[in-house]
Amino acid sequence: MTARVAVLGASGYAGGELVRLLARHPRVELVAVAGSSRAGEPMAAVFPHLRGLVSLDLADAARPDLWDRLEADFVFLALPSGQAAALLPQVFPPARERGVRVIDLSGDLRLPRQSYEAWYGRPAADPALQAEAVYGLSELFSDRIRTARLVANPGCYPTAILLALAPLAVAGALAGGQVVVDAKSGVSGAGRSASLATAFAEVNENFAPYKVGRHQHTPEVEQVLGWLAGRDMTVLLTTHLLPVTRGILATCYVRPPAGWQPRSGPGRAGGQGTRPPGQERGCPGGEAAAGQEPLAEAAGDPGEALYGLYRSFYAGKPFVRVLPPGQVPAIKHVQGSNLCDIGLHYDPRTGWITVFAAIDNLVKGAAGQAVQNLNLMAGWDETTGLDLVPLFP
Amino acid sequence: MTARVAVLGASGYAGGELVRLLARHPRVELVAVAGSSRAGEPMAAVFPHLRGLVSLDLADAARPDLWDRLEADFVFLALPSGQAAALLPQVFPPARERGVRVIDLSGDLRLPRQSYEAWYGRPAADPALQAEAVYGLSELFSDRIRTARLVANPGCYPTAILLALAPLAVAGALAGGQVVVDAKSGVSGAGRSASLATAFAEVNENFAPYKVGRHQHTPEVEQVLGWLAGRDMTVLLTTHLLPVTRGILATCYVRPPAGWQPRSGPGRAGGQGTRPPGQERGCPGGEAAAGQEPLAEAAGDPGEALYGLYRSFYAGKPFVRVLPPGQVPAIKHVQGSNLCDIGLHYDPRTGWITVFAAIDNLVKGAAGQAVQNLNLMAGWDETTGLDLVPLFP
Amino acid sequence: MTARVAVLGASGYAGGELVRLLARHPRVELVAVAGSSRAGEPMAAVFPHLRGLVSLDLADAARPDLWDRLEADFVFLALPSGQAAALLPQVFPPARERGVRVIDLSGDLRLPRQSYEAWYGRPAADPALQAEAVYGLSELFSDRIRTARLVANPGCYPTAILLALAPLAVAGALAGGQVVVDAKSGVSGAGRSASLATAFAEVNENFAPYKVGRHQHTPEVEQVLGWLAGRDMTVLLTTHLLPVTRGILATCYVRPPAGWQPRSGPGRAGGQGTRPPGQERGCPGGEAAAGQEPLAEAAGDPGEALYGLYRSFYAGKPFVRVLPPGQVPAIKHVQGSNLCDIGLHYDPRTGWITVFAAIDNLVKGAAGQAVQNLNLMAGWDETTGLDLVPLFP
Amino acid sequence: MTARVAVLGASGYAGGELVRLLARHPRVELVAVAGSSRAGEPMAAVFPHLRGLVSLDLADAARPDLWDRLEADFVFLALPSGQAAALLPQVFPPARERGVRVIDLSGDLRLPRQSYEAWYGRPAADPALQAEAVYGLSELFSDRIRTARLVANPGCYPTAILLALAPLAVAGALAGGQVVVDAKSGVSGAGRSASLATAFAEVNENFAPYKVGRHQHTPEVEQVLGWLAGRDMTVLLTTHLLPVTRGILATCYVRPPAGWQPRSGPGRAGGQGTRPPGQERGCPGGEAAAGQEPLAEAAGDPGEALYGLYRSFYAGKPFVRVLPPGQVPAIKHVQGSNLCDIGLHYDPRTGWITVFAAIDNLVKGAAGQAVQNLNLMAGWDETTGLDLVPLFP
Repeated sequence: MTARVAVLGASGYAGGELVRLLARHPRVELVAVAGSSRAGEPMAAVFPHLRGLVSLDLADAARPDLWDRLEADFVFLALPSGQAAALLPQVFPPARERGVRVIDLSGDLRLPRQSYEAWYGRPAADPALQAEAVYGLSELFSDRIRTARLVANPGCYPTAILLALAPLAVAGALAGGQVVVDAKSGVSGAGRSASLATAFAEVNENFAPYKVGRHQHTPEVEQVLGWLAGRDMTVLLTTHLLPVTRGILATCYVRPPAGWQPRSGPGRAGGQGTRPPGQERGCPGGEAAAGQEPLAEAAGDPGEALYGLYRSFYAGKPFVRVLPPGQVPAIKHVQGSNLCDIGLHYDPRTGWITVFAAIDNLVKGAAGQAVQNLNLMAGWDETTGLDLVPLFP
Repeated sequence: MTARVAVLGASGYAGGELVRLLARHPRVELVAVAGSSRAGEPMAAVFPHLRGLVSLDLADAARPDLWDRLEADFVFLALPSGQAAALLPQVFPPARERGVRVIDLSGDLRLPRQSYEAWYGRPAADPALQAEAVYGLSELFSDRIRTARLVANPGCYPTAILLALAPLAVAGALAGGQVVVDAKSGVSGAGRSASLATAFAEVNENFAPYKVGRHQHTPEVEQVLGWLAGRDMTVLLTTHLLPVTRGILATCYVRPPAGWQPRSGPGRAGGQGTRPPGQERGCPGGEAAAGQEPLAEAAGDPGEALYGLYRSFYAGKPFVRVLPPGQVPAIKHVQGSNLCDIGLHYDPRTGWITVFAAIDNLVKGAAGQAVQNLNLMAGWDETTGLDLVPLFP
Repeated sequence: MTARVAVLGASGYAGGELVRLLARHPRVELVAVAGSSRAGEPMAAVFPHLRGLVSLDLADAARPDLWDRLEADFVFLALPSGQAAALLPQVFPPARERGVRVIDLSGDLRLPRQSYEAWYGRPAADPALQAEAVYGLSELFSDRIRTARLVANPGCYPTAILLALAPLAVAGALAGGQVVVDAKSGVSGAGRSASLATAFAEVNENFAPYKVGRHQHTPEVEQVLGWLAGRDMTVLLTTHLLPVTRGILATCYVRPPAGWQPRSGPGRAGGQGTRPPGQERGCPGGEAAAGQEPLAEAAGDPGEALYGLYRSFYAGKPFVRVLPPGQVPAIKHVQGSNLCDIGLHYDPRTGWITVFAAIDNLVKGAAGQAVQNLNLMAGWDETTGLDLVPLFP
Repeated sequence: MTARVAVLGASGYAGGELVRLLARHPRVELVAVAGSSRAGEPMAAVFPHLRGLVSLDLADAARPDLWDRLEADFVFLALPSGQAAALLPQVFPPARERGVRVIDLSGDLRLPRQSYEAWYGRPAADPALQAEAVYGLSELFSDRIRTARLVANPGCYPTAILLALAPLAVAGALAGGQVVVDAKSGVSGAGRSASLATAFAEVNENFAPYKVGRHQHTPEVEQVLGWLAGRDMTVLLTTHLLPVTRGILATCYVRPPAGWQPRSGPGRAGGQGTRPPGQERGCPGGEAAAGQEPLAEAAGDPGEALYGLYRSFYAGKPFVRVLPPGQVPAIKHVQGSNLCDIGLHYDPRTGWITVFAAIDNLVKGAAGQAVQNLNLMAGWDETTGLDLVPLFP
């Protein structure tokens, strides 16, 4: 059984990547692509790498009546920030009536109104829609994603950071501790618009922080860590621009509260410790951790204990590769794939834990995870159409 | 029906790319990998991007008894230059007896002895083996490849240059004219050995020619153009090192002999105009061209005529995309795929024709074409396991 | 003695580079900078690398009355194409009256009207101004530059190509032969405006030709080669975009007319063989070449003979480094400097001569050569303020 | 007055950069260069960018009798790690007798024996020599450097990190707080030896941590912060490899002890708060801070207060640019120069201070600071020969 799928916002990098992935997805019929710019042009003119592989023309994503004619089971929205919020109140309710399910890659549905408006500096989406949207971090919330009609696909940084920190959050290592995240992203994360800030001559051979103290992905990370940890979380997140096209490496520094130590026990991705909003909160891993000895003094090697914790947490998750102690992830080892590589380090001199996570920001950080969510929603195997081997070198 | 396949030389870039492609080839069972270095290590240690995707350990490619135990239908050789020549006389005859077919990615079997020794500066392979090997430029010689027991997979530059020039050679535009090829390659073409010449700090933000007047791919290009043109060909080939990892762009300048003009007639890839060695030579396209008017004066637009010639030549060839006049190829539009993009320009001011060809040197220029040849040899569809959409951006 | 200098167009890359060089020029007082955009901002806000080094604010380059208040001996114009043509007829005559001398880095004054309008697609500058402007290729036309009131600084590609080909042109190797130029430029050549074509994610790991058959530097190259060769020249020039920030490598292929051979005789940069327009044409080197044996048969090694020709031609020219046979230039060996490295190859198999020239497009190809011309015009040593050692690695 | 200078280890990147800088230093006569490899070759063959600018041949740095013939006032050592330790006990005492002063760029003299051997994994240098060596962070220890006969030039990471953290250390913000340093370096920091880890195809489009928890610059940072803070310091330092050639950005996260707030008072680079080893320790800034209100509650903006602290600390230091609040450093804004750009951020949500420092690792992080130390030792202006404007773009 196949599904008819449309991509709105197909002239951007995330939208283009969706089309690239869907073009060879064995159960998908790509029925329409639309762009917020370059409407009317062939997709292969906008993205010449798709010459001969995709024959659709871009429809005008800004026309609301586009939705009346859309014979699609699933619609991906990869529109610039704010456009989904503006569009969905009008088009989603009737589409939902017809059975259309929507996966939105923007940040518009990820945050409650107050938080959204504070960090994005623009009016939030309809609160009812936002409440209906399921946060689509596939590894953590697959149960709710499967039945969702509206999915808020995670941001690129939050995907890497949350996959890195979720096991610790559930295991109680974050609440009451310190979390500092130093994140680095490739340039494609900024989208496909001409800008001096992403010009080759400005970015190449360069490296710099940006949006210091005000990156809009901060509340998204804090919100989900809060769900997992069972209490409000505050995180220092600093973002930097890497002179690479694809890839995020998040270096996450955690100083657990005194007395915490890893346990490879009940916490597990998608398990009861990872409750999305609208369900009661709680953190069995955290509870279980109470009364334990300090990490460094625990029986056995703390690095191995951490590794065990993560291996248990991500058991059965095909896209997360937890690296053994001593190995570190590299963005080039996941480029072009839907994988997230996670590396772990416990520093006995300082007591800090470092978790490294590497993803391809356009795949696991955007289009790939959106397809993974499509697979979940359609009841297919999670990996369908996503058997992408990283492109190395 | 599946085939059992082994890769020797799997610790290099071409070998690693073979494993990457074969790991998801639907009809292949990868039974062994061997390396000329790092034998004994897991493939995933040598190439961490394959973690969790390939579980084989590297055998020692230097041990001849490896072949006794090799339960493979097809063996890919991706060994450093000279090693295939040293190895094959001993191991290939008994293997051939058992039905093993070999695809060699090195240059060792591509040239007759005198030419090989002059350009490679080392002893040539057994002439009988060299004569038995079929030159594996898939688009041109598919008939002979299908039945070959031993294939000499083309070099990366020759693949791009020959696909660019074959239609003109068959159509008689090269013989008696001038051919100047300015070729640029990414760094992975130099292989995966530590070398100052390919160190990041030496290559990045740099660009320079290398091996001027003495690149070993020159005689390979001339030999095949000679087959196609029906007479000896001499080409000025200059190679440059691009600060990119993957990709070749060959800019091929042709000044046809006086009076030549394109005809989209009998010449066709794989047709009678493209006879490999061991068959009588001849060039119907060239013959047919005799007596025609100059390109610039031909009825209609010479650019369109050229386009027609190439479209006809590559009709039905799934991996060659001939771009319409005014469009040019870019290596990033083919990266990660087995495609070859070809662009055409006729310059009325000077009478020169420019043909641009872009490939991924590790895919169409090495491992991808080798898999394409496997598909031909095994009687499968040419594109099996090669439905790779270029990775852009 | 110092000179007061102003830079108009200081918000672009060439203008910024001028300011960078003039800031440490020992005989220059930088009295004003103006921009076509970002007027009113501190120069150090527009170019943060100049923080603490340049304290001027950008004036508005578009205001004609700027010139009334300009207390400058020399004015550099680094404005976008077309703006110098629009501005100069009004401001230059009165400024010239006051003794102001102008060095224009745009293409507006380099070509006669018909040629300019055909290749630039916009109205040409006042023909009288264009005729007054001296073409500022410092090595070839230093005598006229010294006394010029208005200099047309050469284009980046023409600088590299003309330095590569001038000795051959003067020596008679071009007239009646074939000239094919395959040129590659870094991205900064496109200027500092936001554009998808120069975005990092589009350019990095990419390489492609552009403006095929229609690059506006073609007639500039042909015009000067014509002056040097003593007859009209047609050149096939193809430009490619390199994924580097700074640098041009021009690979120039020359097939001399039958019977030509190098002579390291009378031809010399700046000598009588290099007459600019407005003077009688002539080519002693070419004349001298008549009746000589073919290059390959000349006494001695043709490569050495070529080297001798170039060494003689550029004797005493501090910024041209002619490399001995077997060595090739690399753009990273000249980056950040005003040098032009030239490499030579004679190919006995085909009879073609290859000349490689490498420059930093923003220094020798723009701002550095403009400062070199300032030095000539002011009567200072040519190298004043230009003792820039290339930045390697 | 000029000084005669020799560079040992001139075939590496730091040594090559020293030669590049010394070649145009107005008071230096470069009398000898020697290499640990490629001895006998001209310097311009080893580093072609120096063609025509440096005419010396490389002597053999491994020959001890080299020192007998060395007519130099200053000797720079840029040898691979361990070689200075092996060489100096033999050659330095007699050279010191003759008045030779040595600046060693390796890590061999920076740490006491126990610490060196634990982190470098090799025998330490003679403890007497190590004790004699003055730690050459020019901005902090200029008084002792001026009279030193033996200088241990700082490591590249420590230079950036210590310049970032010194003002906070002296002001008492580190002792009793948390310090997490996330540092990123360009590839040239690894030196000029062929290595797969620094090969273009492995590094480009990649980003990864390395030497996690065991980088040998960790104890160097801790030692100097300890001197400044007046008590033992432990720092979590994590290093990452950037796909750029030159540049370090250190992102330094500091959580000051409760109650700390900035004061732009007595602390000042080179002042009494920055005592090197062998002098009594103490931290007037820290003392002064006692009893003050929390940063966030202090009168006025904490960001401005931090800025004031740093401006005071680095007043009169020509190579340190402290950026105003809201601006961040970028490595490309200092590339090719001896500058260190420092950016500051106080995060009111978490209470953490972030200090960003950017340097060119080969200039301020190695050769440039070594020349700065030469200037101090010779009694010249600190900036002599170092008026390098960053190369942008």
